Amino acid sequence: MFEFMTVRELYEMVMSGEEFETESLEYVELDGWVRTNRDNGKVGFIALNDGTYFRNCQVVYLKETLDNYDEVKRISTGSAIRVLGKFKLTPEAKQPFEIEATQVVIEGACDDDFPLQKKRHSFEYMREIPHLRPRANTFYAMFRLRSVLSMAIHEFFQSQGFVYVHTPLITSNDGEGAGEMFRATTIDNTDFDKDFFGKEAFLTVTGQLHVEAFCMAFRDVYTFGPAFRAENSNTSRHASEFWMIEPEIAFADLEDDMDLIEDMVKYCIEYVLDNAPEEMKFFEQMIDKDCIKRITHVRDSEFKRMTYTEAIELLEKADVKFENKVEWGMDLNSEHERYICEQIVGGPVFLTDYPKEIKAFYMRLNDDGKTVAACDLLVPGIGELVGGSQREERYDVLEKIMDEKGMAKEGLQWYMDLRRFGGCKHAGFGLGFDRFLMYLTGMQNIRDVEPFPRTPRNLKF
Amino acid sequence: MFEFMTVRELYEMVMSGEEFETESLEYVELDGWVRTNRDNGKVGFIALNDGTYFRNCQVVYLKETLDNYDEVKRISTGSAIRVLGKFKLTPEAKQPFEIEATQVVIEGACDDDFPLQKKRHSFEYMREIPHLRPRANTFYAMFRLRSVLSMAIHEFFQSQGFVYVHTPLITSNDGEGAGEMFRATTIDNTDFDKDFFGKEAFLTVTGQLHVEAFCMAFRDVYTFGPAFRAENSNTSRHASEFWMIEPEIAFADLEDDMDLIEDMVKYCIEYVLDNAPEEMKFFEQMIDKDCIKRITHVRDSEFKRMTYTEAIELLEKADVKFENKVEWGMDLNSEHERYICEQIVGGPVFLTDYPKEIKAFYMRLNDDGKTVAACDLLVPGIGELVGGSQREERYDVLEKIMDEKGMAKEGLQWYMDLRRFGGCKHAGFGLGFDRFLMYLTGMQNIRDVEPFPRTPRNLKF
Repeated sequence: MFEFMTVRELYEMVMSGEEFETESLEYVELDGWVRTNRDNGKVGFIALNDGTYFRNCQVVYLKETLDNYDEVKRISTGSAIRVLGKFKLTPEAKQPFEIEATQVVIEGACDDDFPLQKKRHSFEYMREIPHLRPRANTFYAMFRLRSVLSMAIHEFFQSQGFVYVHTPLITSNDGEGAGEMFRATTIDNTDFDKDFFGKEAFLTVTGQLHVEAFCMAFRDVYTFGPAFRAENSNTSRHASEFWMIEPEIAFADLEDDMDLIEDMVKYCIEYVLDNAPEEMKFFEQMIDKDCIKRITHVRDSEFKRMTYTEAIELLEKADVKFENKVEWGMDLNSEHERYICEQIVGGPVFLTDYPKEIKAFYMRLNDDGKTVAACDLLVPGIGELVGGSQREERYDVLEKIMDEKGMAKEGLQWYMDLRRFGGCKHAGFGLGFDRFLMYLTGMQNIRDVEPFPRTPRNLKF
Repeated sequence: MFEFMTVRELYEMVMSGEEFETESLEYVELDGWVRTNRDNGKVGFIALNDGTYFRNCQVVYLKETLDNYDEVKRISTGSAIRVLGKFKLTPEAKQPFEIEATQVVIEGACDDDFPLQKKRHSFEYMREIPHLRPRANTFYAMFRLRSVLSMAIHEFFQSQGFVYVHTPLITSNDGEGAGEMFRATTIDNTDFDKDFFGKEAFLTVTGQLHVEAFCMAFRDVYTFGPAFRAENSNTSRHASEFWMIEPEIAFADLEDDMDLIEDMVKYCIEYVLDNAPEEMKFFEQMIDKDCIKRITHVRDSEFKRMTYTEAIELLEKADVKFENKVEWGMDLNSEHERYICEQIVGGPVFLTDYPKEIKAFYMRLNDDGKTVAACDLLVPGIGELVGGSQREERYDVLEKIMDEKGMAKEGLQWYMDLRRFGGCKHAGFGLGFDRFLMYLTGMQNIRDVEPFPRTPRNLKF
């Protein structure tokens, strides 16, 4: 007689606009957690969330009909309950339906020291309780969105035949200056001969070099997994552990790379708007009122392309006082990037062909001998979102630039050899998954988009 | 005039069975890598693989019509080339079509010391060249299959509303006896106060404890990511870095858990047969002639359920001499597990309700006080494939068993607190992704299903 339903199923049914027989669904069974519970002595209201949907389901209970009314009215926020009741459409009310309880069973009570009572808490406070904060609205929205965006990434690449590669997390590659690294070890000193792997081992900062090897077999490949940085800096945009997406495409140049970036960003925006509409609406209402407008604009824009050199000229001509002086050869700061995409272009723009000195060794040297075939995607609101490049496929040129940069080549001979064994032009990019989430939602701190964030001197559980 | 096509597109078009106008596809452009190249002075044949499809595309070139015939005939295995040519159906030949080249351009030559010449190499040898082996058939099949199976996992869970959680890789949780752990560190000693996180940090052995916290917010959740074991043992089934799938479901008991495992295993088998048919055919022909039959049987079987105690009784009665003596309370060995599922059941079987002494602290104590609500899925051919359990949701019972097992509770207070703050019955399981791949294909060594395998004293790149 009681049909088990999730809150999502109920909302989707009601919102589908299709006619349905309420008689066929007269009595339902639900379970979930109590978000709020109030009563006036005769009638009580529970906002029930069962984890399947952003919105709550209203449960009404009456003194007159519910045997354990006095017990139910004392059920505290956070408790797990099971409800059997009568489904009722409520077209005049705020919520489109409610459940009139005929039975309420307490599955798991919630102690009084539950930190998530009704009042609002700061994000700082919430970071102290990462095991509980997914039950608070902002994090409840964020972590479902995180899951939805992950699936967007996989669907985008898999639907185009890309092969997903699990590049290794522990590596002997020391990152070539990409940043400070963690060591993975089983010894208490630096006698690495006696360490687990018989040599020093690191936690990876990038899967790119490894994925290039697979690109030379499968043409179109991507990684999507964790990476690590042991930088001892406390900023709102850096975490010690984060997730990255790194695709790599063979027989492809920088133009193909930018096409792919543009397609991916637009696909992901469309996907989250379609698949997490309630969550995005929440971020628009509570976190960043422009977020949906901003990403919709990006989705609908043609991404412009401009060389670094052109950008420098425009910045030099600009009638703006920048904190950092503009000159060719410099690494652009956020103020410059935002000026270019917000003031000059008024939308997403790829800057291309950066000075080789400020870019990584594997980027392809242009014919001018001074710049490399790199691109950064700048978007209004934050500046750089994605960085990519065509890779140097010429063995001798790669070797020369590694020498110029003073790199030790032994550990990377395998990588260089990819150029000797049927190498071809290829390109790829890296997208910081956590920063993409921040961009989509307007959340300001990377600690608030990761389930259990890791930062210097902060390792909670 | 030349339409760019991938080898997969050509095969899919030809095999679709649909009529198509060859005129509309008279001239095509392809690029890829040379698998073999032979000529007889008048006509040559290149087996071209472009990374998109398991099978090669035959390229025919004629002395009479190809300007650079003498150059092309010397193109070595492994080289990257671009081919323009005429598409021809060849219904009488082994391959359903071929390309008659009008132009062949060398994109990247392959040096003579390319290790993957025509002759077969041992898997041991291939492990020395993880950056090149994806171009050899077995690994080319394996690593696409790995990607396909990854997507099967995500599609299975996402289609049912599960939330994907990126549980942390670096953790302060010391694994509670699940195995030896790597330390993540930035110092050269054990002065952990001065280490990056201000305390000792480990690489995770499981995401389960963390994902349980998210289960209490989202009801149905899963992790799918890397895990680590620093066990100094060299076996064919253990790697120091591997990928795990760990779902967790709320308001669910052991029966629900087993239903979920059964659905997932069947879904994944169906998915790889549908989405990697060429690869599975290859494994059947070259690696394990029973693999497709075996997994098809599992897909079509009803998974039986039997208690550990029943299994012990059957083993004691069995007319077989086991190497390890059978008695209640023991951990079953592979010989016992295989006897049960191969000889007694003749198909997949869940063993349930194991003695609490041989199982983890978080498994729910049964009313008998002696066994816990655990299940292992045994499958013919290998024995245990999946391990799961209902979790202990009663704070006092959990505390008692932690004391019995002599565990330090401070570091797990957050985990125990999940029981105080609206905990409810819940269950979950762990599936070793790499072992699942071994099971599907009959591959015998975990080193051959991972892109860059990590094992004691072995850290290649």
